[in-house]
Amino acid sequence: MHPDPRTAALALATALLAAACLARAQPRLPGFDSPEVASDGRVTFRVLAPQARQVILNAPWAGQDLELERGDEGIWSLTVGPVPPGIYSYTLQLDGVRVLDPHNTAVKRWRGGNSSLVEVPSDGVAPHELRDVPHGVVHAHYYRSSVGPHRRMLVYTPPGYEADDGRRYPVLYLLHGSGDDETAWTEVGRAHLVLDNLIAAGEAEPMLVAMPNGHPVPWSRTRRGLRSGNSEAFERDLLNAAMPLVEDLYRARTGPRNTAVAGLSMGGGQALRCGTGNLDRFGWVGAFSSAAPDPAGDAAMRSFLAAPEEANRSLALLWIAIGRDDFLLERNEALRRSLEAAGVEHAYLLTDGGHSWPVWRDYLARLAPLLFRE
Amino acid sequence: MHPDPRTAALALATALLAAACLARAQPRLPGFDSPEVASDGRVTFRVLAPQARQVILNAPWAGQDLELERGDEGIWSLTVGPVPPGIYSYTLQLDGVRVLDPHNTAVKRWRGGNSSLVEVPSDGVAPHELRDVPHGVVHAHYYRSSVGPHRRMLVYTPPGYEADDGRRYPVLYLLHGSGDDETAWTEVGRAHLVLDNLIAAGEAEPMLVAMPNGHPVPWSRTRRGLRSGNSEAFERDLLNAAMPLVEDLYRARTGPRNTAVAGLSMGGGQALRCGTGNLDRFGWVGAFSSAAPDPAGDAAMRSFLAAPEEANRSLALLWIAIGRDDFLLERNEALRRSLEAAGVEHAYLLTDGGHSWPVWRDYLARLAPLLFRE
Repeated sequence: MHPDPRTAALALATALLAAACLARAQPRLPGFDSPEVASDGRVTFRVLAPQARQVILNAPWAGQDLELERGDEGIWSLTVGPVPPGIYSYTLQLDGVRVLDPHNTAVKRWRGGNSSLVEVPSDGVAPHELRDVPHGVVHAHYYRSSVGPHRRMLVYTPPGYEADDGRRYPVLYLLHGSGDDETAWTEVGRAHLVLDNLIAAGEAEPMLVAMPNGHPVPWSRTRRGLRSGNSEAFERDLLNAAMPLVEDLYRARTGPRNTAVAGLSMGGGQALRCGTGNLDRFGWVGAFSSAAPDPAGDAAMRSFLAAPEEANRSLALLWIAIGRDDFLLERNEALRRSLEAAGVEHAYLLTDGGHSWPVWRDYLARLAPLLFRE
Repeated sequence: MHPDPRTAALALATALLAAACLARAQPRLPGFDSPEVASDGRVTFRVLAPQARQVILNAPWAGQDLELERGDEGIWSLTVGPVPPGIYSYTLQLDGVRVLDPHNTAVKRWRGGNSSLVEVPSDGVAPHELRDVPHGVVHAHYYRSSVGPHRRMLVYTPPGYEADDGRRYPVLYLLHGSGDDETAWTEVGRAHLVLDNLIAAGEAEPMLVAMPNGHPVPWSRTRRGLRSGNSEAFERDLLNAAMPLVEDLYRARTGPRNTAVAGLSMGGGQALRCGTGNLDRFGWVGAFSSAAPDPAGDAAMRSFLAAPEEANRSLALLWIAIGRDDFLLERNEALRRSLEAAGVEHAYLLTDGGHSWPVWRDYLARLAPLLFRE
């Protein structure tokens, strides 16, 4: 079919208009890509900074403080890798000022300082990748709670939930780290895709995943090392507001055999606190790189350890994972020793890696298949 | 009640651990705020850049290319305003390199280049502010479509929807601009809060708001001014995949009297195309600062203009809004003249402002109360 010349002219005019929209709305980015990921996993960073005297890549996964090299026309660049498939964060330091990669629109928001994100694809092998499988739905809620009028939570429903066939699902409460918010587990952790992929492969039970905000006390107070009461407020919020919301609005199965709580870093500490402290509510507990309570100093943990038979009867799984390079390693080792000494059954996983999202995505992909299967 | 000294010591240890988590995970930001918004609406920007020779604020709403002043210890700063309440975007230029404000974690993602965001609060007067009113739920979907396997859409359900009482709701399809994605209308536009507030005040009908992704053809192709076929692909996707999804999964009222389409910039062009070209599907059309089709060159628009009686009988509202400072003003004026000449009823709103989100939030707050009320 020959295109109508007027249609072709119109299409061109429309395309030029779209280009003009962009140009007028904001100056266009220079004509190169950063980061550029090659098929062999090498990653190239570039920044146009003709006046800069030094540009450094801050990316512990690539090496410590690597310098970019100044090239033609003031474009600085550096190639690292090959890097194993995964999603990594980094920043650039321009003459000492730490900034996001100006070219990269993929951002990891974090209250302690945002980062840029780069993804090295794995051709559909990594558990967090978007694949051609049935997808669940992520629901964003505001809710009222005694700890605040504008609490927020995301809820993942698995593929097929909307068939509305009366089927009920177990619930995983999945908690983020300090300085994150309720969007971190999906935006950065890709928890919804991890679950989609595991469920499609028959490797995890279809489940609801509720991701509440872990900072009922503003993070700006927690950060200063004040005694903020955040953990106590979070526990009240989870038990008395977040869980009732999920159980009211969703077809949730209830009771400890159908309810798990897991989290990373601060959220791992919250999961241990809420899970081991409320055996009538939670039967599955996961702690990823967790800010684990000190068994010697924490009254609730002491009570839990003092009744190992009740713990072993109540908990279907107490799962603790920590990286060899994590600064919280010794704290988790101490918890492990206390659990062993008390005779509390648990799984303890010592892995490669440190305190970072590649590790936590992996932990979720390892834990989810274990849940709600007895 | 006297605190148990052991509990107090534990709380302190926990707080210090939380602080240590932050410090180890990523170096802490320097101890000042940027931006800082004073109660009178003045906004102060700060950046620590001891080695910089020039730091410029790029924020057209504050003035053209204002220079920050170097102060003690290499902290550059600038105060602007008072600025009227609203949410504004800006970038900083460090020795010629355009970067986000390193201190500010609020980011507007945009494929043409991200920006930092600053909000000047209005004490609950602005229609986009989070207020203590019942809130709707925002649902994030993936769906398959003939135009792609991983299409995405957000769907807002109004407060009370989950009562599951059989009540059905009209639907507004709300379209984003070029380089945005399906999250722009909530993350940047706060459409969900605008609707929550209008519905709570009785000023808008409770409605569903479906926000599909407007780039079935990758934006990287559209951007180069190629004839991408994006508009055609989007129309097929909207009619044949997005609308059926909404009508299958939600308690949607159907038919043109219950169906609106509106959008901004590129999305305004798409709304005009889809709305005026499918009078059997849409009865309400809104074009915000739109990339309006050229009435002389666009075959579909010519057909629409050639049948004004049908247009006037079919459309409950054709609503066009454009700012006096918008680079698309003349294009919208041309459309207005064509509509007038043809005798097609419409509302034409010429406002202050240009091609920016403060204008689009305002347009949504003006249009939503008009919809589905006859």
